[in-house]
Amino acid sequence: MPYRKTPSEIRRLEAAREHLVACATSVVAEVGWAQTSVTAVADSAGIAAGSVYQHFPSKAALAVEVFRRAAGREVEVLGEVLDGEGDPVERLTRGIEVFARRALENRGLAYALLAAPAEAAVGAERLEFRRRYRALFAEVVRQGMAAGLLPAQNGEITAAALTGAIGEVLVDPLGTPSGHTTDELLTDLTAMALRCAGAPAV
Amino acid sequence: MPYRKTPSEIRRLEAAREHLVACATSVVAEVGWAQTSVTAVADSAGIAAGSVYQHFPSKAALAVEVFRRAAGREVEVLGEVLDGEGDPVERLTRGIEVFARRALENRGLAYALLAAPAEAAVGAERLEFRRRYRALFAEVVRQGMAAGLLPAQNGEITAAALTGAIGEVLVDPLGTPSGHTTDELLTDLTAMALRCAGAPAV
Repeated sequence: MPYRKTPSEIRRLEAAREHLVACATSVVAEVGWAQTSVTAVADSAGIAAGSVYQHFPSKAALAVEVFRRAAGREVEVLGEVLDGEGDPVERLTRGIEVFARRALENRGLAYALLAAPAEAAVGAERLEFRRRYRALFAEVVRQGMAAGLLPAQNGEITAAALTGAIGEVLVDPLGTPSGHTTDELLTDLTAMALRCAGAPAV
Repeated sequence: MPYRKTPSEIRRLEAAREHLVACATSVVAEVGWAQTSVTAVADSAGIAAGSVYQHFPSKAALAVEVFRRAAGREVEVLGEVLDGEGDPVERLTRGIEVFARRALENRGLAYALLAAPAEAAVGAERLEFRRRYRALFAEVVRQGMAAGLLPAQNGEITAAALTGAIGEVLVDPLGTPSGHTTDELLTDLTAMALRCAGAPAV
């Protein structure tokens, strides 16, 4: 009879895997992809380095899982705000504020997600997530045009531009403090984004 | 007496290195960073794989050199246009057109420079080059404000936004043709960029 895991064994394994991903995410946020070693993650999770490989076949596979989880949360939060209350321009403004504020509150993680040099597998995930951001922005720009709040424009290009622009603006404050307060940065960032989408100046 | 290379040997080595970098650039433009092997580069240059290591200690070192040369040329061309004839808004418009047109004419290379998943060493170069783009755009935005052609704004944020926006807009047409002609894309891209910088609609 083949050995089958009991439900409680499965739950224990899943909990251990979750704990490992959470610890790896903290290590990545603190030291970046390149400096994150399997040993450091194992230490942080309180397990032997070899045990990491019970859950992930390679460091790259663990890195991809860390990226997917963390980036997935950000896409989800942005999607909820863009899909929430208010007219499309208000939702766009709030979405950018929320996205940027979250990035500035966890700069290490945001830098890892947006820009930090990483293995190619993580780079491929990053491109995929940028497509999801573009799709979210494209929808709210489309709604803004339909509501007559935004001028006629190529919404796909505006959506790509917003995705690239916001990421790039957040990269340098993340790397090197630029002397702006968070509120000043948010004000200037949303003003730029609204100009980019052609919303009337407020 | 230690062996010293003669001038003609040095010239021959330099020419061989140049040829190798040019061949490697073509291979990267064609198949991307991940698929570029030392063997493929050596084949393309008509030398043995081992000879590549006479010039570069590792594949990563060769990749970094390919990136620096190609990205350096793009920064130089953009700098010349942004620094050329015309008022700041005209120069910004022309700079974006030239940058985008060059990217669309060599999509494989542009994708490799802008976005393709690559080893971390190339990722670090990419961040460095983005800083150079930001500095170029910041200067022309500053001039535009000084000339009263652009409204008061945080020029550093606009410059970062333009860098991110243009790169991101060019990534997807590069990856998946979007049904736009090059001219339509250029028109929409420059319109977006001018809105972003607050230039009056033309």
